[in-house]
This record gives sequence, C-alpha cells and structure tokens, in this order.
Amino acid sequence: MKLTILIHCPDQSGIIRSVTTFVHQQEGNVIYLDQHVDKQAGVFFMRLQSEFDREISLESFKATFETELADAFQMEWDIYTDDYQPKMAIFVSKYNHCLYDLLSRYNSGELKVDIPFILSNHKDLEYVAGQFQIPFFHVPVGKDNKAEAEDRQLALLREHGVDFIVLARYMQIVSPKVIDVYPQKIINIHHSFLPAFVGAKPYHAAFERGVKIIGATSHYVTADLDAGPIIEQDVTTVSHSHSIQDFIAKGRDLERIVLSRAVQLHVARKTMVYNNKTVIFS
Amino acid sequence: MKLTILIHCPDQSGIIRSVTTFVHQQEGNVIYLDQHVDKQAGVFFMRLQSEFDREISLESFKATFETELADAFQMEWDIYTDDYQPKMAIFVSKYNHCLYDLLSRYNSGELKVDIPFILSNHKDLEYVAGQFQIPFFHVPVGKDNKAEAEDRQLALLREHGVDFIVLARYMQIVSPKVIDVYPQKIINIHHSFLPAFVGAKPYHAAFERGVKIIGATSHYVTADLDAGPIIEQDVTTVSHSHSIQDFIAKGRDLERIVLSRAVQLHVARKTMVYNNKTVIFS
Amino acid sequence: MKLTILIHCPDQSGIIRSVTTFVHQQEGNVIYLDQHVDKQAGVFFMRLQSEFDREISLESFKATFETELADAFQMEWDIYTDDYQPKMAIFVSKYNHCLYDLLSRYNSGELKVDIPFILSNHKDLEYVAGQFQIPFFHVPVGKDNKAEAEDRQLALLREHGVDFIVLARYMQIVSPKVIDVYPQKIINIHHSFLPAFVGAKPYHAAFERGVKIIGATSHYVTADLDAGPIIEQDVTTVSHSHSIQDFIAKGRDLERIVLSRAVQLHVARKTMVYNNKTVIFS
Amino acid sequence: MKLTILIHCPDQSGIIRSVTTFVHQQEGNVIYLDQHVDKQAGVFFMRLQSEFDREISLESFKATFETELADAFQMEWDIYTDDYQPKMAIFVSKYNHCLYDLLSRYNSGELKVDIPFILSNHKDLEYVAGQFQIPFFHVPVGKDNKAEAEDRQLALLREHGVDFIVLARYMQIVSPKVIDVYPQKIINIHHSFLPAFVGAKPYHAAFERGVKIIGATSHYVTADLDAGPIIEQDVTTVSHSHSIQDFIAKGRDLERIVLSRAVQLHVARKTMVYNNKTVIFS
Repeated sequence: MKLTILIHCPDQSGIIRSVTTFVHQQEGNVIYLDQHVDKQAGVFFMRLQSEFDREISLESFKATFETELADAFQMEWDIYTDDYQPKMAIFVSKYNHCLYDLLSRYNSGELKVDIPFILSNHKDLEYVAGQFQIPFFHVPVGKDNKAEAEDRQLALLREHGVDFIVLARYMQIVSPKVIDVYPQKIINIHHSFLPAFVGAKPYHAAFERGVKIIGATSHYVTADLDAGPIIEQDVTTVSHSHSIQDFIAKGRDLERIVLSRAVQLHVARKTMVYNNKTVIFS
Repeated sequence: MKLTILIHCPDQSGIIRSVTTFVHQQEGNVIYLDQHVDKQAGVFFMRLQSEFDREISLESFKATFETELADAFQMEWDIYTDDYQPKMAIFVSKYNHCLYDLLSRYNSGELKVDIPFILSNHKDLEYVAGQFQIPFFHVPVGKDNKAEAEDRQLALLREHGVDFIVLARYMQIVSPKVIDVYPQKIINIHHSFLPAFVGAKPYHAAFERGVKIIGATSHYVTADLDAGPIIEQDVTTVSHSHSIQDFIAKGRDLERIVLSRAVQLHVARKTMVYNNKTVIFS
Repeated sequence: MKLTILIHCPDQSGIIRSVTTFVHQQEGNVIYLDQHVDKQAGVFFMRLQSEFDREISLESFKATFETELADAFQMEWDIYTDDYQPKMAIFVSKYNHCLYDLLSRYNSGELKVDIPFILSNHKDLEYVAGQFQIPFFHVPVGKDNKAEAEDRQLALLREHGVDFIVLARYMQIVSPKVIDVYPQKIINIHHSFLPAFVGAKPYHAAFERGVKIIGATSHYVTADLDAGPIIEQDVTTVSHSHSIQDFIAKGRDLERIVLSRAVQLHVARKTMVYNNKTVIFS
Repeated sequence: MKLTILIHCPDQSGIIRSVTTFVHQQEGNVIYLDQHVDKQAGVFFMRLQSEFDREISLESFKATFETELADAFQMEWDIYTDDYQPKMAIFVSKYNHCLYDLLSRYNSGELKVDIPFILSNHKDLEYVAGQFQIPFFHVPVGKDNKAEAEDRQLALLREHGVDFIVLARYMQIVSPKVIDVYPQKIINIHHSFLPAFVGAKPYHAAFERGVKIIGATSHYVTADLDAGPIIEQDVTTVSHSHSIQDFIAKGRDLERIVLSRAVQLHVARKTMVYNNKTVIFS
C-alpha cells in the first residue's frame, strides 16, 4: 500500500527528521521525498511517498499523524492513497480542442480519473460526450439565471461526488459561490503573451505589436479573474508571416497540451498552493 | 558586387515583377527574394538581394531606382552594399553581461561592425572597453544635466558617424531628442514575463506570482518606453525552486543572447518596421 | 480563384521574373512568393500563390505553364487549386494517441482533408474509427502474407483515390511496392534522441545514458527506414527524475504534435523534397 | 557555516531518517534536501545542505560521518563547505566563443571559481588570457610528443592544485592518463543532432539531411569519446534557409550557454554520476 503525504507549515528545525521517523514508526518505508523552503515567506513544503507492506487504515493513520505530528508543527496537510481515482468534471463551451485532448488521454488510460459528466452552457459539444459515452448536462447561463445555473452546477457536482473541475475553454466566469466549494480545485487555461496584453482581444493586440512568442497558462481559479496560482505554462514562436488565425491555431495547440499537463500534475498530487503561487514537485 | 534592397509600399499588383525586371535591366541577378503582405494593413514588404558581375555606382543605381520604380509604387526603400561595415555605438551602465557578449562576438569576427566607442553614465565598465581597446566615454546623466548629456551624446554620435546604437542594459531613458535622430536605429533589451508584470520590480512580481517561464525582448526604441517594435524574443523555464537571484541570473542569460540576435538581424538588414511592428526576414 | 505553384529547377538567372511575368500574362495577381536557393546543390525552389478574378481551367493553365515556362527552365513543378480537399488514409496499429489527435483536428475543421478510411493490421482501434464514423479496414500483416496484404492496401488506396498516407504509429515497415506508388506522399513519425540511439529499444538506451532532451521527427517515408526527408521535429526536456514510462509518455505528446504539424504542412503544399531533404516554406 | 553533503548508496530503508538525525545530533539544521531513487539500478541519491550556528571542523565532521553513518549504508559520499572556491583550469584550442563566455561570467562574479591558468595546444588565444590577466600555458600536442605533453599538463594541474578541468572546445582527445587523475572532473562540450550523425563532419551531415533542430551536449569526459555522462543539453531550430555556416554559428551559441550551465552545476555540487549517467539536482 502506498501513501502520498503533502505538507506545508512554518519553516522550522526538525521537520524532515520527525516525519521520516513517524513513517518509520508506522512501519512504512519512505520511497520519495521532495521538499522546498520559501525563505522569503518562511514556509516549508514537503511531498513524501511511503510504502507499507501491510494494509493500513487511512483514517487511523490520518488521526495519528494529526495528533502526533501535524499539530506540533502547525502543518496544513493531506494524505492520499494511490488506489483512489479522483472524479473530474469538465466544463466546456463551444471549442472542442481541449475537450478532445482530455478525453483521448482518458480513453487510453493515460489520465487516471473518473469523469462523471461534461457540463456546458451550450449544446454544441454534446456529440463529443456521446462519442466517448460520458453523460452531458446542458446548463445554460444567461444574465437572468446565473444564480439558478450555479445552483444546478453545485447540485450536479455534489450529487456525483466531483473532486475537481477542469474548465476546458468554458468561456464563463465562475463565481465565488462555486470557487468557495472547490478552492484550488478548479483548473483553467488561458492564452498568455510576451509581453502581456490586457483586454478583450489579446490575440489581435499581440498581432498588432508583432510579438515573436505566444503562450498559454494553466492556473487554479480564484476570485481574481485569470490571476490564480500558475500550474503550468508553455510558449511557441510566431513571426510576421503568421496571421491572427495562425496565432489562434497555435494558441489552441498550446492550450491543449498545457491544460492536460496541469491536470496530470493535479491528479498526481504534485501541486501545492500558498500565497497565490504554487510549488510543483516534479 | 552585391546589393540588398528593402522595400515596403501599399500592396498592389505587379511589384515583384517590376522589381525583378528592373534588376534584370541593370544586368543584375536576383539571388534572394523574400516578401510579405500584411493583408490587414494592406502593406507589401520585400527583401531582395542581387549580384552584379561589374562594379556599379550605388548612387546612380539608387537614383534610377527612385525615378523608374520607387515613385510609381510609393515605396519606402533602402539599398545597401555588402562591403560597408556599419558603425555601432554601445551604451552601457553597470551590468557587463550584454557588453561582454557583444564584444566577444565582435572580437571573433562574428559580428561584422565597427565600434567607434562605448558610452556610459558610470565608469564601472571602462575597464571592459580597455580589455578590448575600444574608446570609452563617460557621460554622467543626472536630473540637472540631462539636456547637456544628450547634447554630448549626439555630438559624439555625429562626430564618429555612428549608424546605430545598442543599449546594452543602459538603464536610462533615451529621450525623443536622440530617438528622432536615430529612428528605428536604437536597439534595447529588457526582461519580459508570462504574464507580464508592470512596475518597478518585475522579477519580484513574477517570483511572487510563481511564474514558470521568464523571457527577454529586444526592440527598437520609440518614445513609448519599452513598447517599440519587437525584433527578437526568447524564454526559459523556472520553477518554485529558483530564487529571485536565480530568476535574475537566468534573465541575464536571455538578455545576452536575445540582444545579440537582434543586433545581428539589424546588421544583416533583415528587419523592417511599420506601424510599431517588425517584419523580420530570416 | 487561387492557385499554388511549386517549382524546383537548376538555379539560373531570370526564374522569378519569368514566372511572375507569366502569371501576369494569365491575368493573375501574385499574392505570395517564397523562394530558396540551395547553393551547394545549385537548385532553385519557389512557392508562389496567385489569385485570379475569373474562373480558369486548371488543365489548360498547366498545359500553358509547361510549354511556355517549365520546359525552358527544366522545372519540376506542381500546381494546386485551393478548393480541392486531399484524400488522406491513416494507417495505425495499436497506439491511439496520434490517431485521436488527427481525428479531433479533422473533426473541428482544423485539418482540411477527407479521410476515406483508417487501416490497421490489428482490430484494437476499430472503435476509434467508429467514434468518428470513418470506415475501418483490418488488413493483418504477417510473415506469410506480406505481399497479399500490400496488394490489399494498394487496392484500397486506389479504389478510394487516396492522395497521401499518414502512418500514425503504424509499427510496420512499408515496402517499396507501396512507397513507389506514393513517393513523398507517406508521412511517418518516430522518436528521436539527442544524441541518437540505434537499435530496438531507444527509450531504454536514452534512459540508460541519462539524456536531458528527447524528441520526435516526422518525415517522408523512403526505402531507407527512418532516414527519409525530415518535415518537422520537436523536443522536450527530461531529467533523472523521469522513469522510462515518463520518457515514453512525453514522447507520445511529442509524436502527436509533430505528426499533426507535418500533416498540416503537407496539406498546405508547403513542403518540397529533393536529395533526401526538404524545403519547408512557412 | 554551511555544508553540502552528496551521497549515493544501495537503496535501503532508513537513509533519510538516519542522515537527518545525524545532522541534528551534530547540532546542524537541514535547509535543503533532495533525493532520488533509481529503481532500476537500486541506487539511492541524496543532496543535503545543513547550517551550523557554530564553526565546525570539516575534517572531524567527515570522520564522524564516515564511521557513524557512511560505512553502515555503504555510501559513496562527499562533503563540501561553501567557503571554498574550486580551482578550474580551462583547456582551449583556437575557438574563443566558449572561453569568452566563461571568462566574462568569472569576471562579473557570476562564476565562483579560481582560474589558475588557461592551457592550449596553440598560441591563438593567448591574447584572451591576457585581456583577463590569467596565466596562459602553451603546451603543443603532436603525434610524437603526446606523452610528454600530458606529463606537462599533469604537472601544471598538480602544481596549481586544480580541482576540475573545462575543455572549452579543446579539440584534442584527452587520454586515460589525465582522465584517471580527474575522474568525473573534466567537462566537455560538443554539438549534437536530432537524429545524430556520426563521423568527421556532423554539421555537414545534418545539413545534408535537412534537420530542423540542432543541439549541444555537455558531459563528463570518460575514456569512451563523447559518450560520458550528460550534464546539460539544449537545442535550437534551423531550417532550409540556413547555410552550414549558419548551423555552425547557431551551434556556437548553444555550446557557449550549455557549457557555462554545466560548469555552474558542477561548481554548485549539483551533479552526481553513476553508471555513466548523471543525477542533476536543480
């Protein structure tokens, strides 16, 4: 049996020694340990994996961990077993490129999650859900029914026991009502530019400026639109010979790959968040 | 003898045919031709190289070109011979990384320019100029003497027949007084981020946000600070394990290489500017 | 109406002028021209697009082009209209990642081809063809029936008027019998390493050596296995922390994107082949 | 006072716990720990940094470490203090690009080493050593005096207490006689290609094949030429429009940056070698 332990706490002497000793006392063997100290913030981070020859109760392990270790170091922590497959809901709108990428990885067993449903404010991609035989819910969002739509979303998420949400080009602002229920558990993707362009048509602005590099950023959703902690980024080169349509096509390729990588990191429990930034253990 | 012709003009029928026919009439042979049409702006761009078996007078060639061709198509154009080595002034402040990179390329014959002088508002890098036996001028710039300093700069530039200026981490704002004399002939380098961070300490802001990619941008200097037409960009990856000092060191490496590439493109006459963007013929 | 003209011929004076003049005489307007001279080989390459206000007969245009222009310059050439959608057959084996990538691009209208069928030596991916409602042919290839299998392949290709073939991880050697019918029209993808590793298990060899970069190469298939003209390449970084399984997963992501880019370049008529290398007009 | 401990040993239970406990007993505080297990080889690697409030004797610390810890786990280990600046000899031939890059980083304090001397089989770069006021030794290597030349090299290295050697485009094969004295302490740089080309003129071979990506690899020198453990690699894109000279110029830029990064990793004690591969702690 394998456990993954994620910890962050005020930086202090003896944390690694204490945690490895604790695992030893529980008859576990440390098979992976990565740690990081943000000296500026004074915060210690650790990701540790341990193996146990016998079956152990996750609940009682957690309880012992809390009383014997976590409290003393003021840890924020999580412990996961590797045999649980997280439940991932996908929210989409009309673009299918990120959706297809996620589903083909799911389909080939590369992305180890359950997908209880795909949800959209439009019916355009219902056929894709059908291709992969995944339930599809059409929840239209308009000016007048935003609150009801979110209640419907939350009901569906609860009913299906969803662990985290991927906005695969959802094109709608997710309100704090939903974010508060899924803190650091909603993953978004958006284009990025070097330098950045603010406003409604960033690809057009980047094209006007003649940028040579365009990018995409995947991040956890916070109340501050598109400014949440960054999980993954990538870029590609462009030139004057590319039209705005070429920019957008190259952007789609980046969005696909960057979103999938971010989702994989989240599923593998390799991301930790604090102060609006991430520690990504590779 | 080899000529490089750069043209941009309103897009219209017959330009390529007319120019290649003109070169043929002058007994030249086209050895390279690259063109681009910005459909949105309706502008045609061309870079053409031609070889001549005989020596020809650049002045009379230019005169004929203007009357027989350029006027009819409302061309903005330049014609260069390959045997002229442009004169490049370098402005620096206290950082030596970009300066060393330029000088070592100059020294090995890779960067085909003359360097009449290095100019700085500080004396810190005088020794580097000494190592490479290049004249060094110390022109301090303060609140009270900005106008005089610029007059001094302009006098030196004129006196040495400088063709273009490289700001190799000059750290001072160049005023329109100098820019107007060297339009699209002053090359600057600055860091860039994905997404961008505005303000005094961008590296710190990027670090705070936990970005995964940092970059550098080289551009022609315009009156609008750091917003001139982009010549070259590049990026590198960072992670939570890098400190602000690591960010800055990686940024220096990018600045070095991106500035040198931009200078090489400028020297090779591969850059054209319009509407605050560039066409870079590769 | 829009025509794309691809030419290569011995380098000589007057080609560009003659071709642009010819297009003008046919009442066409050159909207794009890119050319390249391989000085070492003495070969001239050109890709030219021209627009015509009136409908013109492709057949008669080609005939005139041949007699008035191509013969004189000893050109190898092709002329395409933009309204023809090429027919692309996909050969697969058991891996689905490249297949899904191509089909999702096809499905979203990004990849402008017809797909008459998917062919495989195994039945494993028949369900994917079903998801996208594309005919699937199972043509097993064994030691004893290789010749018959190839006859069956050629019959299917001919019957469906296939223009080019994509080997989306086909895992079988395509024999000269098929290659000769589709010269420079079969696109393959394979992993590449820096430095390269020869032999049966390159990922294992690369892992053993501790390489920091792995790549993928897409090329036209020639009789010399995996050594045909390169269309597109890309790389990604790895480290000691990645297992062989991680190497392979990262390799899959590269294969996906590199193969799709190569196919797009081929479909856009941006590739020219000579002497076992390519000119890729961007 | 700060110590960096590097360990590798057979993978077994309790290593992290034992080492962190040992550091604690010595009144040190672990400030950084990174570990890696190569499951295939069954080897455990660790890099650990610890801080001590008091001055401690490195010699006695090492002795205690050996008897109380290293022997039990069959560790191969090294312990370094941060206040020692390693002595780096540079071997060059006629190319100056890597040399200038190293010296400018040394000069700006970015590369924290002492450089007792630069050695070359030619006199071409003596002037560069002069520019930076570093002793230069001319040790010609010919068919007839190879053994004497190496004796002279070894004498110089010993006399100046050199810790490691950088071959900054040295262009000569270093024989086992020297390698054996500096195992995993000689850093080389060479170009790499995707796919690789063997033989005398790899740039020409890569050009002939029309590759789209070229690279550079820095590695520790072993008896097997250019096949030692890889420290760092990087690549850049090329196209048909680049000549062999362009390939070589782009290759020089890669060599510069890749060699400097490899040297920095070595100096920071972030590299460990086993089974002809490296673990690079970032």
